[in-house]
Order: sequence, then C-alpha cells, then structure tokens
Amino acid sequence: MSKIRVAVIGVGLVGSEFIKQLLSVPGSPFQLIALTSSTRTLFSPDTPITSSWKTQLSNSTEKADVKSLTERLKALVTPTDKVVVVDNTSSDDIAALYPLWLSSGLHVITPNKKAFSGSYSLYEAILNASKSTGARFLNESTVGAGLPIISTLKDLVLTGDKVLKIEGVFSGTMSYIFNQYSTGSPAGPAFSTVVSEAREKGYTEPHPADDLNGFDVARKLTILSRTIAPSPSIDSFASVQTASLIPSALEGIPTGDEFIARLPEFDAQFDTIRKEAAQEGMVLRFVGVVDPTKGEVKAGLEKYPTTHPFATSLGGSDNIIMFQTERYSPRPLIVQGAGAGAAVTAMGVLADLFKLL
Amino acid sequence: MSKIRVAVIGVGLVGSEFIKQLLSVPGSPFQLIALTSSTRTLFSPDTPITSSWKTQLSNSTEKADVKSLTERLKALVTPTDKVVVVDNTSSDDIAALYPLWLSSGLHVITPNKKAFSGSYSLYEAILNASKSTGARFLNESTVGAGLPIISTLKDLVLTGDKVLKIEGVFSGTMSYIFNQYSTGSPAGPAFSTVVSEAREKGYTEPHPADDLNGFDVARKLTILSRTIAPSPSIDSFASVQTASLIPSALEGIPTGDEFIARLPEFDAQFDTIRKEAAQEGMVLRFVGVVDPTKGEVKAGLEKYPTTHPFATSLGGSDNIIMFQTERYSPRPLIVQGAGAGAAVTAMGVLADLFKLL
Repeated sequence: MSKIRVAVIGVGLVGSEFIKQLLSVPGSPFQLIALTSSTRTLFSPDTPITSSWKTQLSNSTEKADVKSLTERLKALVTPTDKVVVVDNTSSDDIAALYPLWLSSGLHVITPNKKAFSGSYSLYEAILNASKSTGARFLNESTVGAGLPIISTLKDLVLTGDKVLKIEGVFSGTMSYIFNQYSTGSPAGPAFSTVVSEAREKGYTEPHPADDLNGFDVARKLTILSRTIAPSPSIDSFASVQTASLIPSALEGIPTGDEFIARLPEFDAQFDTIRKEAAQEGMVLRFVGVVDPTKGEVKAGLEKYPTTHPFATSLGGSDNIIMFQTERYSPRPLIVQGAGAGAAVTAMGVLADLFKLL
Repeated sequence: MSKIRVAVIGVGLVGSEFIKQLLSVPGSPFQLIALTSSTRTLFSPDTPITSSWKTQLSNSTEKADVKSLTERLKALVTPTDKVVVVDNTSSDDIAALYPLWLSSGLHVITPNKKAFSGSYSLYEAILNASKSTGARFLNESTVGAGLPIISTLKDLVLTGDKVLKIEGVFSGTMSYIFNQYSTGSPAGPAFSTVVSEAREKGYTEPHPADDLNGFDVARKLTILSRTIAPSPSIDSFASVQTASLIPSALEGIPTGDEFIARLPEFDAQFDTIRKEAAQEGMVLRFVGVVDPTKGEVKAGLEKYPTTHPFATSLGGSDNIIMFQTERYSPRPLIVQGAGAGAAVTAMGVLADLFKLL
C-alpha cells in the first residue's frame, strides 16, 4: 500500500507544530506533499518536503492558490491512494472548500471550527459530499484540542448509547478567568484585573471581547450537537442560546486596549454575582450545555457547588467535559485536561490522520 | 464491500450485552455468524443469527469446539472480507489462541485481560502474528471498560508524546471500598463492614480476596505498560510490584465466607492507617502507577491530599486515570467514569469493532 499523501493548508502556530510532529513519525506511513501559507504554495509530490520546509516553501515561486492545488491533489486520488487535506487555518473561506474536497475524494482533517459550526447548509453539503465519495472528515481537535471528546461522543452514539446531557467548561480562556476569579470566597481580585492579566499572559484573544462573547463555546456546542445528530434546528452557532459576558455598554468597542481600559466600570456588577454565589456555597463557571432530551443548547455563566468537579478538579486553563448518558448515569464519563495550545491541538490532528490508516 | 463477519466466544453477561448492542446497530455493517458458549457452538454464515440467538444456540447440535470453528472462520477470510473473533470470556485457554487467530488473518477484539497481561512470550507471539498478516487486535475494554483509556494512550504514543506517568484508580471494587472507607475523617465504618457490604452489593468477586490481592490492577498496569512500549521487563502481571491488601494470616483461605468472617480481626490495623492518613489531611486510595521514566510499575495503597481529584472527584465505583505526559504537563489529561459493568464493557468492545471499518 502506498503512503497516505498529506497536503497542509496553514502553516502558523498549529500548522508548524503539526508538520513537526508529522515529520517525526518513525517509519512514517504518511508523505507530506504540499504546503500552503497565506501567500505561497509548495506542491512537491515527488521531492520530499523535509524539516527544512520553511525554506522550501519560501523558495517556491507559486503564489497561494488553493483551487489549483485542489485540482492537482484530486488527480492523485485512486481507489488505493489516499490524499488528505489538513486545514490548520481558522478561515471561513477554506472551510467553505470542504464539500469540494470531499466530493473530489480528498479526506479532510482539521482543528478549524468554522465549517462544522457554521451554516447548516454548509454542514449538510459536507455530509453529502463525504457520503458520495466515501472520503472522510475528522475534526477531533475542534473541541478540547487533543482531548478525546469527539471520538468519545462518536463511540457513545455509534454503539447505541443515548446522550442525556453534555456539560462542560469548553473554553481554556474562560476556564482560566473563572478559576482565578471565583474560588468560593465572596471576595477576590477584580474581574477586570483577572481579564487583563489573562490577556497579558496570552490566554485571551488580542481583543478579549472575542472570548467573553462566548462564541467559541457556542461553536463547540454546535459541533457536539451535530455529532450526536445532524439537525437543521441549529442553523449555525449564532442560534445557540449564548449569554455573552460583554457588558452591553462595551459592545462593539473596536480595540482590545479600549475594552480593557473601560472594563473596571463593571467590576462591581461582577462582584455582586460572585458574592451571591459564594453565599450559596457556589462558584461561577462559564459552561456549555447540550441537552438533547430538552432540545437545549446553551452557553453562559452558571453556579456550581464548591464540591462539584468544575470547582474542585479544575485548574489552570483546563477544559472539563461531562457526558451523562443512559449507560454513564447517574455518574458521568468525564474528560479533563488542556483544551488549547499548539502541541495538543496538532496532536489531535495527527491522531485523526492515523485513523485513516 | 461485504459486511464484517463477527464470531463471538463467550455469551455470559458481557457477551449477551455485546450481542444485544451489535444486533441493534442501525444499517449494520456487521454480520454475526458464529456463537460459542462453554458447551455449544453455532456456526451460521448464511442464516442470520437474530435476537433469538439463545434459542438458535441451544438448538445447535454442535458441541463447543473453538479449534474447528477457527478453521471454518479462517476459510472465510479474503483480502476484502474481514472476519473478527470477539472473545468475551475471561479464559486463559481462549487467550492462548490469539496468535493462531491473528496468524490466520482473523482480527481479535476482547475485554479479556489474560493474553495482554500474561506471559511476555504470549504477548510477543500476538504482536508477531498480527504483524505477519496485518490482522489487528483491539482491547479498549481491558482497562476502564468503555472509557477511552487505551485509545487515548495509543494516540499519545503514536503522535510522539512522551508518557511521564500514568496514575489511577483502576479497580471499580477498590474504588468503591475506599471511597466508602476513607473520606478524610479519622473515623468511619470498619474495613470488614465496607468489604462485606461491597460483596453483598455484587461489587466484589464471590471471594473478596480476588479483588484485595490487587491482581486486577496489576494486570491493567501490565497492559498499559506494554501499550506504551512492549518490553520483556514485565514478564507477566505477576512481576508488577503489587501490595496486596490481604492480611498475611488470611492468605489462601479457601472460601469467601470464611474470609469475610475473619476479616474483622484486622479492622484495627486498617483503622490505624486511615487515622494516620486523616491526621495528615489525606485519604487512602488503591492506585496503580506506571512510571516509564523511573521504570516503575506498581499497585498498592497510597495517600492523597483531600483536595486531590482522587479524593474530591471520585465516587461510586468510578475509575479515574491521570496521564502525565510531556504535552499534558504539569496538568494531566484525566479520564473518569464507570470502569466496569456489562453495558459499558460491551460498548468498548463494539466501539473497537467500528474501528475495523
């Protein structure tokens, strides 16, 4: 059997780490044949792409052209020769190409959440294209990075278990912020201080509103919900019931610096809910819930007893996800650990690649 | 592509549940073609085996003969026709057949720990047989039942992560006993009372010494250790450093009833270590550790702070497993949930079967 040929779109932090891990596989069953950055494409089906890939790519005279690359990759597909496109971008434009790739017989592996949490029509096109050719799409790293979340959920569903509820802390940023902010004590650091420190440590996006809006969590819930059962009831992540943490007066503030400068005005507001929670013996956590029995998918701030795993077991910027199912009930199946970062994200992508063997 | 043909050896609790789940797969890509109990074999490659399988099996006139069944299964293997033997027994004799099956091109899926934790020569024969034909063996349910333990470990290793330490509560029985017995308080129920109640609830083997000897944990650690890297350094589970909880005066007591009757003589001994632990702010847990950096594989009673996930997060008869790796460090990847029971064990077996598609 010939090696599985791999084309990588996106060579940023995750992309670079993925290439590093891929090229380190001993006796590799994979062959890296193409790279595309935002400016350049390297297509090299015969000459190996090596650990000097950055030089090889910058020496390439071909401008980035994913459509033309698609044609050339498609020509390599045969009933026994697998070709995989690994999308390491977070681009909507690239995500929109998955149906084309899948219907061309190209497998798709990605940590990019856009396609699976975007419009239902795109998601349906992906499912149909995959069905028509048998090409697979794998997206373990879209939720919890390298943690076994999607694969566990698929196994539960495939083997006939019934998911009653999925509940978890899905955002590393939100995890870090509330692990610092709400420990069960009525007092503590100001909310704006915690967010500002998180930003300085690189735990938030440059504009913290991009985390505090809860969209990242809503996207992950959309993916989980569709993994249980594809349904047009979630038209996109925007239809998830999401309780943003952005004070309404700060909506639409253009820069992260301005946002951080004005956030202290709302510290008292956050203090009040922290104090109320502490008085009830609770902590605050920004969680996501998928409840197929109630037909509910929602993201927002919730209170948990200080004895709950979301309070006792969580630390750092960990994700924690609880699966309540007919079989895992009353006690849930729990997966916990780092849910972001280049190394663990790339690992989830590479583990998906091994599933194609 | 033709359906994957499945032969099931062992139709006890787990076997029956597996058959039930297998026959419930919608649009199933699997065909159940053979069953073997301890007394009877049903080989039915053409007539479907249905949910009335118990009647079909008891109507079969063929005595149980796994060797002859092997020959007939082998004859069905072609480059495009997969045949899988699912061993749902806990038999050493059946486990000894894996090399024969694998070298005949038959895939093997099993929750039976015997082969993978037995002699290294058997394990090596399994690896070599699998290599020679490409037939695969999958054993997710041997550790933590349906929990994603083996698959997670394989993904970490395959993608080049370095395992620093695996530490966990691997026995549902031991979990239940110590979650009841040691809560951080210096006093509590007598050890013999907790064991006796666990036995009445069916959480222990009929003879509780079969749990308290720690062999079940030693077997699981052997499997994990070999999954990281096969090595003759663990000649079998018996070479794992295992601190049995059986008081030496009670070693070799023939029946569970006698064992339970005499266990109270040793309550004071257990009380002392519980009290000492509580005075240090610790709880007692029976854990297993695989530490490849130290070359250590051991099972025994250990103390953990009352704030540790083994104390705060654990309940019921849950398993909890922490993976410390180069990537998941300093905070580990944690998997927790029910690690025993027919439904979740069968689920792990069926999920393995889907991996052959």
